Amino acid sequence: MRATVIHGERDIRLEEVPHPQLSTGIDAIVRVTAACVCGSDLWPYRGVTATDGPHRIGHEFVGVVEEVGDQVSTIKVGDFVIAPFYDCDMTCINCLNGVSTSCLHGGWWGSDDRAGSFADGGQGEYVRVPHADGTLVATPQYPTPQQIPGLLTLSDVMGTGHHAALSAGVTPGSTVVVVGDGAVGLCAIIAAKRLGASRIVAMSRHADRQALAREFGATDIVESRGDEGVAAITEMFDGIGADCVLECVGTQESMDQAIRSARPGGMVGYVGVPNGGAELPIRRLFNTNVGVNGGVAPVRNYIEELLPEVLSGAIQPGKVFDLQLPLDEVAEAYAAMDERRATKVLLTP
Amino acid sequence: MRATVIHGERDIRLEEVPHPQLSTGIDAIVRVTAACVCGSDLWPYRGVTATDGPHRIGHEFVGVVEEVGDQVSTIKVGDFVIAPFYDCDMTCINCLNGVSTSCLHGGWWGSDDRAGSFADGGQGEYVRVPHADGTLVATPQYPTPQQIPGLLTLSDVMGTGHHAALSAGVTPGSTVVVVGDGAVGLCAIIAAKRLGASRIVAMSRHADRQALAREFGATDIVESRGDEGVAAITEMFDGIGADCVLECVGTQESMDQAIRSARPGGMVGYVGVPNGGAELPIRRLFNTNVGVNGGVAPVRNYIEELLPEVLSGAIQPGKVFDLQLPLDEVAEAYAAMDERRATKVLLTP
Repeated sequence: MRATVIHGERDIRLEEVPHPQLSTGIDAIVRVTAACVCGSDLWPYRGVTATDGPHRIGHEFVGVVEEVGDQVSTIKVGDFVIAPFYDCDMTCINCLNGVSTSCLHGGWWGSDDRAGSFADGGQGEYVRVPHADGTLVATPQYPTPQQIPGLLTLSDVMGTGHHAALSAGVTPGSTVVVVGDGAVGLCAIIAAKRLGASRIVAMSRHADRQALAREFGATDIVESRGDEGVAAITEMFDGIGADCVLECVGTQESMDQAIRSARPGGMVGYVGVPNGGAELPIRRLFNTNVGVNGGVAPVRNYIEELLPEVLSGAIQPGKVFDLQLPLDEVAEAYAAMDERRATKVLLTP
Repeated sequence: MRATVIHGERDIRLEEVPHPQLSTGIDAIVRVTAACVCGSDLWPYRGVTATDGPHRIGHEFVGVVEEVGDQVSTIKVGDFVIAPFYDCDMTCINCLNGVSTSCLHGGWWGSDDRAGSFADGGQGEYVRVPHADGTLVATPQYPTPQQIPGLLTLSDVMGTGHHAALSAGVTPGSTVVVVGDGAVGLCAIIAAKRLGASRIVAMSRHADRQALAREFGATDIVESRGDEGVAAITEMFDGIGADCVLECVGTQESMDQAIRSARPGGMVGYVGVPNGGAELPIRRLFNTNVGVNGGVAPVRNYIEELLPEVLSGAIQPGKVFDLQLPLDEVAEAYAAMDERRATKVLLTP
C-alpha cells in the first residue's frame, strides 16, 4: 500500500510500504477514506523539530473497517469509523477519567504499538489500529460525502478546540478570546459558542479566516497582536480582559498574549503544542490569579458528544477544510499549509 | 503608637511610630487586638527577598473599630472586625468577580494607600484601613477570647488554604494531596475536607503538624519528599496520582513535587508565594493535562462563607497558632517561626 513518509525538512514522500496485518487479536485494519495534515505536522516539516530518519506521518483519519482481530467485540467489518489522533483502550483509569491521551496502554500513529507491532501513520491507504474497540468510534450509518469533512475533524481539531474551551472553563455567559486562527482556533470558536459564551473574540489577520470565524460564532475580530492586541482585548472587556482565553498556537508569543488577555481570576485553556520551550510567567500568573489548564486534547473522550451535532449539521467544523487533494499530492498539501495557501487540507487516498 | 518595623535580615524591631489619622472619608482606624506572623514575612526576614530600607511589616490582624470616616456606611465604631491581608473596595469589577486581591483601588498594608496616605502594617497597635466598608468584615457580636485565633486565620491562612482547594477544583469525592505543612497547608486540609474530599494526604515530616493535619481531616501522611514522595503518592492513587494537589509552599521543589503528584488531567491549586523564580514545566503539563491554577488568595471574598463555621467551631483553624506572645516580643515571634519552634505565632498588642 502507499503511505506518507517524512524524510526531513520539507521532504514529504508518498511511498510503497507493507500492507498492515492483524497481529494482536484486539486490532483492526481500516481502509482510510479521508485523512488530513495537522498544524503540528508542520513542525517537523519546517525543521522546527528534528526528523532523525524517515518515518511515517499523519494522525487524523476516517475510514472503513476491513478486518478485525478475533477479540474485537464492538467494531465490525464494514463500519465507518473515526479514529482519534492516538490509540487508546478506553478501559484504563486515565481513559475513564476522561484523559485518553494518557491511556496506560495506548500510543501514537506511525510508531510502535507497545505490543511489539507497528501502528501505521494516518496519511496512508490503510492503518492497523491497535485497540480497535477503544480507539474507533463507528458512525450510526455510512455518512454522506458532505458529512465526511466534519467527521474527520473529530479526529483532532474539533475535539482539540473543544478541549481548549473546556480547559478554560467556558460556561454560559463567559467572555472568550481565541488566540490562533488555524483549524483548531476556528473549531475552538465553535466549541465556545456551543458552550454558551456570550462574546467570542477571534484574533485573526486573514480575511478568509475572519469570515469563517464569524460564521462559526465569533462576535468580534482583533487583528493586532502582542502589546497592541492585548491592549485591544483589555479595552473590550472593562479594562481587565476576558474570562477565558483559548490558546491554539503553541508559541511563546501566543502563550504570552493569551495570559495577558485574561482578566484577573481568568483561565487560559491551551492546546497548542508548546514548541521552542514556551515558558509560563509564574509571578504574573500568581499576582493575577490567571490559571493555565489544558494540554494534548483527549479527543476520543469527546467524539460521542460531538458526533450527533456534526451529523445533523448543528456544528459545521468540516468547513475548516479549504483544499482537497488526492493522497498522491500529499507533498503539495504540506506546502499549501506551510505557505498559508490553505487552512487545512483534506487528503483522499 | 508602637508598630513593627523590619530593618533588614533578621532585624525586626517594635518602634514608636505616628498614630494613624483618618484622611479620606472612607477609612477607619482599627485598634488591633490580635495580629500574627505570616510564612511570607519570613522571606524578607531571612533575606531571601531584599529589604531596601526600614519599613512596616505585618498583614494579618483583627481588632476593634475606634474611628470611621464620614463616608463610611456599614462599619461602625465598636465593631469587632476582621481585615484581609490587603485592602479592597469590594465594588470594582475584579472584587465583584471574586478576585479582590486585584481590586482596582486597593493596596497592601504597610505602604501607600493609592490616595496619598499611608496604610499601616498589621503588626502594630493601630491600623488605618483605607477602604473600611469594603475591606473589613464585622462579626455579629464581640467574640470570645477562644474565638479570636480562628477569626484571625480569616485574615489570611484559612482563606488562602480555601483558595488552594477551590483553585484545584476540590469537589465531593476528590482525592487531594497537600504539599506544605505550615499554617496554610494545614488550613488547606480543613478546606479540602469541608469541600468533600474523599481522601486527603498531608505531606509532612513534623510529628506535631502531622497530628494537627489528622485532626483537621488528613486521612494519610507522607513523610518523604522529592522523587520518593512523588512515588509514594503515585502508588497511593492507582499508580497515577491524585485529582487535586494543593501547593502551599512556593519553592521550585514544592511546585515540582505538586505537579508530579497530580494524575493526568488533575489540577494543582497553588497559593505559595513563588520565590526564587519557580518555573512551570510546560511540556510535562501539556503531555499530562495537569493544570495550574491559583495565586494570591482573594481571602476577603471568602470571609462571609467561612465566618459562621469558625464562630460555631465547625472548623477550628485557630489551632494553627501554637505560640502566643505579646507584641513586645515580635522579634522572638519571627525567630520562633524561622527556627520552626512554632508553626504560627499570635501577637497581642
